[in-house]
Amino acid sequence: MVTQLDHEDVASAHTNLSNQLHRYTFDTLPLHSGGQFGPITVAYETWGKLNANADNAVLITHALTGNSHAHDAENPDDTKVAWWNPLIGPGRFFDTSRYYIICSNVLGGCYGTTGPSSIDPNTGQTYGMRFPVITIRDMVETQRRLIEYLGVSRLHMVAGGSIGGQQALEWAVAYPELVENVIVVAATAALTAQAIAFSEVQRQAILSDPRWQNGDYVTGQGPDAGLSIARMLAMITYQSEEGMELRFARQPARNQNAASPSGFTDLSERFDVEGYLYYQGQTLVKRFDANSYLYISRAMDLYDVSEGYPSIEDALSRIRSKVLFIGIRSDFLFPAARVRWLADRARAAGSTAIYAELDSPHGHDAFLKEWKQMTDALNLVKE
Amino acid sequence: MVTQLDHEDVASAHTNLSNQLHRYTFDTLPLHSGGQFGPITVAYETWGKLNANADNAVLITHALTGNSHAHDAENPDDTKVAWWNPLIGPGRFFDTSRYYIICSNVLGGCYGTTGPSSIDPNTGQTYGMRFPVITIRDMVETQRRLIEYLGVSRLHMVAGGSIGGQQALEWAVAYPELVENVIVVAATAALTAQAIAFSEVQRQAILSDPRWQNGDYVTGQGPDAGLSIARMLAMITYQSEEGMELRFARQPARNQNAASPSGFTDLSERFDVEGYLYYQGQTLVKRFDANSYLYISRAMDLYDVSEGYPSIEDALSRIRSKVLFIGIRSDFLFPAARVRWLADRARAAGSTAIYAELDSPHGHDAFLKEWKQMTDALNLVKE
Repeated sequence: MVTQLDHEDVASAHTNLSNQLHRYTFDTLPLHSGGQFGPITVAYETWGKLNANADNAVLITHALTGNSHAHDAENPDDTKVAWWNPLIGPGRFFDTSRYYIICSNVLGGCYGTTGPSSIDPNTGQTYGMRFPVITIRDMVETQRRLIEYLGVSRLHMVAGGSIGGQQALEWAVAYPELVENVIVVAATAALTAQAIAFSEVQRQAILSDPRWQNGDYVTGQGPDAGLSIARMLAMITYQSEEGMELRFARQPARNQNAASPSGFTDLSERFDVEGYLYYQGQTLVKRFDANSYLYISRAMDLYDVSEGYPSIEDALSRIRSKVLFIGIRSDFLFPAARVRWLADRARAAGSTAIYAELDSPHGHDAFLKEWKQMTDALNLVKE
Repeated sequence: MVTQLDHEDVASAHTNLSNQLHRYTFDTLPLHSGGQFGPITVAYETWGKLNANADNAVLITHALTGNSHAHDAENPDDTKVAWWNPLIGPGRFFDTSRYYIICSNVLGGCYGTTGPSSIDPNTGQTYGMRFPVITIRDMVETQRRLIEYLGVSRLHMVAGGSIGGQQALEWAVAYPELVENVIVVAATAALTAQAIAFSEVQRQAILSDPRWQNGDYVTGQGPDAGLSIARMLAMITYQSEEGMELRFARQPARNQNAASPSGFTDLSERFDVEGYLYYQGQTLVKRFDANSYLYISRAMDLYDVSEGYPSIEDALSRIRSKVLFIGIRSDFLFPAARVRWLADRARAAGSTAIYAELDSPHGHDAFLKEWKQMTDALNLVKE
């Protein structure tokens, strides 16, 4: 089953967040790049109950513009309300009747966890670009503090896709003793030059918008055009030639109402794919902070699982968890061949690594769409 | 042989153009979209001599940001001086001792042919966005006027890559009686949704730049950041994941001097691919008009060889030329499979269509880099 669900629909769930959202604050985090940063507040949600041994917790990590609302207990079948809803709940893969499921907004985010749009207590102003460069390791270390606070002795599982998959992988390498199973979906050892390039074009679109103001824009008066252009490009990279052809081809625009980033579309009648992308841009701008976009996308670029180790083998040989890697046939941002390569290297380095591939035309986004295939693939970790 | 040559290096040849450049002006062109437009000046260069039968002319059509300087007789081996230099000259495939070779700057361009940066004689101002929407058919009709003016009775050949390939294809369909051989390199029957999407993101970057001023910028004060971002993205689409990995991988920047479109790069040390893309953006801005970029890229999106015919078969069945289609294995803008499909359809529609594929990791740009393979493929049309 494929529903026409995208990243942006998913996180419109933001409006439903507030009553389920919990917060944990700690004083300081040693940063991967050096120095200390704090205080840090982590916004998170949980479903299910921690057992007496404190070893049934599952940590779910979200994608770039996602948030902690992976599941919505009141609307468990609505894929627009919570981004991994069909995979979470009683009897589902992430079984809330068996596991204590935790999902936190990522460090640097804008859904409750400390990020560039947070107030710096030392100045009373938002951090903006005074926020430090953060990495996947910093994100994972923040999550580790959270699970310690929640009393979890050992995670039964960490699972995530895209930048969430990078975090899951980093969990396996950084804290081998703390996690029993790891699921890395549509993520690789490190981004390709092409993926970094797409990412930098997106950031330059934001940074070039005069309303960006060196990052010191007022909320609601930020670089909407730049962020919207960034999102348009990102949405192309989350799909595939094949998937976009199936969905849009050269059809004329069905949605004539979406405003383009520039407000200008008069070079001739628009194609459907253009109206669609304008809409995606418009929607993200309403719900996401441009500076968070800069910092989190940069963390994605900078990630290299081997960094700080003599070799990638040394990094991967640290893994003690069972690791399931899931690639997507049509993903060009995190190509399936590179996910498979990583699984092979992990196995060669001594870990129990399984590889599964989603046969989907939907590109990178398939992990947010192909529920049946995702469930089948996820179940492999239980075998 | 692969030289590290890119679109932008190619057209730095601009500075050498003026003394070879000829101009032909005609009063009015009936536009594909309706109405008349004029006067139109066409800037062109020629090499070799037209024979007594006036049937040895070869028309070469350039890519998006290219120009008429396909060949440089004084520097015939310098690939940075003229964009198809290694293919043109005495004894080369486009043999200047046998053929009368013509290359004109495209309608809408900024290298001498009438385009948005030209002065509208009715107002004394540059056209800007008052320039009409133009199509590949308008470009081809302009070229037809030129060859008529040059006294050519029938073209021995039309050849071009990318949007130049679209023009070559359109020549075969629109004027079957006027062209004996057609070479379509890295072009398809119509752009994919993905390619249109990439194209529109580029245009929105230009249109969102406040210096664009609804197209009425003063030369030298145009939307440099927007055009530079557009170029960065375009350069990704002209290459391939494989090629960028070979060339850049995750290396740190070798070129630290190139300025990014925004002037901002401080989120951490930059990757080599980023410095490279900044340089590409910077270089294009110095030599190309942003409004021309909008109009020509839109013509590329709008092209569909079947437009105006009951079916693509009807369009292709008009062809009387021998047609050589050249695809590039790693091209994702004009995928090889779609070039091959077009060749198959042309053959099915009754034409003599040959398909050849460049086995190159260099993506769409391979037709400006793989000289040996290009020559071998081109020679197939002679068999």
